[in-house]
Amino acid sequence: MILYDTRRSGNAWKVRLLAGFLGLPLRRRTLSIDRGDLRDPGFLQKFPFGQVPALELEDGRLLAESAASLQFLARDTPWWPTNPFAQAQALAWMSFEQERHMPPLAQLRLRLALHRDADPGEPRILSWSAQARHALALLERQLAGAGPSGWLITADHPSIADLALYPYTRFAPMGGISLDAYPATNAWVDRIRQWPGYQPLFPGQPDMDFATSEAELPA
Amino acid sequence: MILYDTRRSGNAWKVRLLAGFLGLPLRRRTLSIDRGDLRDPGFLQKFPFGQVPALELEDGRLLAESAASLQFLARDTPWWPTNPFAQAQALAWMSFEQERHMPPLAQLRLRLALHRDADPGEPRILSWSAQARHALALLERQLAGAGPSGWLITADHPSIADLALYPYTRFAPMGGISLDAYPATNAWVDRIRQWPGYQPLFPGQPDMDFATSEAELPA
Repeated sequence: MILYDTRRSGNAWKVRLLAGFLGLPLRRRTLSIDRGDLRDPGFLQKFPFGQVPALELEDGRLLAESAASLQFLARDTPWWPTNPFAQAQALAWMSFEQERHMPPLAQLRLRLALHRDADPGEPRILSWSAQARHALALLERQLAGAGPSGWLITADHPSIADLALYPYTRFAPMGGISLDAYPATNAWVDRIRQWPGYQPLFPGQPDMDFATSEAELPA
Repeated sequence: MILYDTRRSGNAWKVRLLAGFLGLPLRRRTLSIDRGDLRDPGFLQKFPFGQVPALELEDGRLLAESAASLQFLARDTPWWPTNPFAQAQALAWMSFEQERHMPPLAQLRLRLALHRDADPGEPRILSWSAQARHALALLERQLAGAGPSGWLITADHPSIADLALYPYTRFAPMGGISLDAYPATNAWVDRIRQWPGYQPLFPGQPDMDFATSEAELPA
């Protein structure tokens, strides 16, 4: 199975995390947004949505979108709950992540840490920061209610909803938001990082999730 | 079962459409954004995401987010495919709708038809219009490939992905985008409108989907 991604994509990281936890072999084909790979006609022919992550299965079938890829790979495993209502709750939190959680956190990371083309006092940064803190507060409330060994949806095992919420929560400090203000969330991040099969953002570099440029990574 | 919605919400319309097609009894509790109902503490206590649609089941369980609500209600019906890959494709198109299709089409409808607080030549309107046309072109390509009696994911029966893409496609003319340029999409809209159990946006007013104010609706 081939995963099309970019080196620092948080959405693609979700799929790599699940593949690591499930022990699924995944060949990465890492594209460059700067080089225009996502607008390449060959890529668009396969994936008209023009985004990563995108999966090419062994039999040639093609699947786009992180939520769909997670659900497809997790079916018949403990990462996709068996209870229909729990399944729906997982999808609800995954929608929340894509609509309200990831967008402001991704913008803060992009502007303040990766591109460094915005000032922390700019109105748009303050607006994204307020939106991000509100989203993190809702996640914190849910995780605090789940207890110190609980997960977002189910008590006994993490689900793909935990994985969907993980990357951009993990990146929050890059956008100026410390997770120390969200203790249940902070502990949940640590529990995910300790789960067997965990894959760091950069292979072999477990402490480099916050790297902002290639130059910071070891050769 | 109670559906919390607003009178003109396209996202809540998706759930009302599915309930109509399945013959599910649904009691509407119609909230007003202008009155601040979505920030009401009682509503937020039940639904921390603070959005509609939101479902309250007969046993009191609560579910937010349109994609999750559609999947939950459609399970074990022909509206949720049985094939796992088709399920994932349905989720992929539903993610696409929430991320790339609905946002520009909803903004065009809001600014040009409902609030009427923007000029068609403004840069943000032109940008949303370009994004909306790109999203509609991707939908058109998929539907054209499905043939004159086909549906978005499966050949023989519409799925919740068709319902998720329907409302904001239907609203496109309110934002200045005629569907005449998208013939397969235009025919698909008509096929959905003719499906037994179809619920118009305004109950009993099948031709008023484009109404922009309460005053336009019959008493």
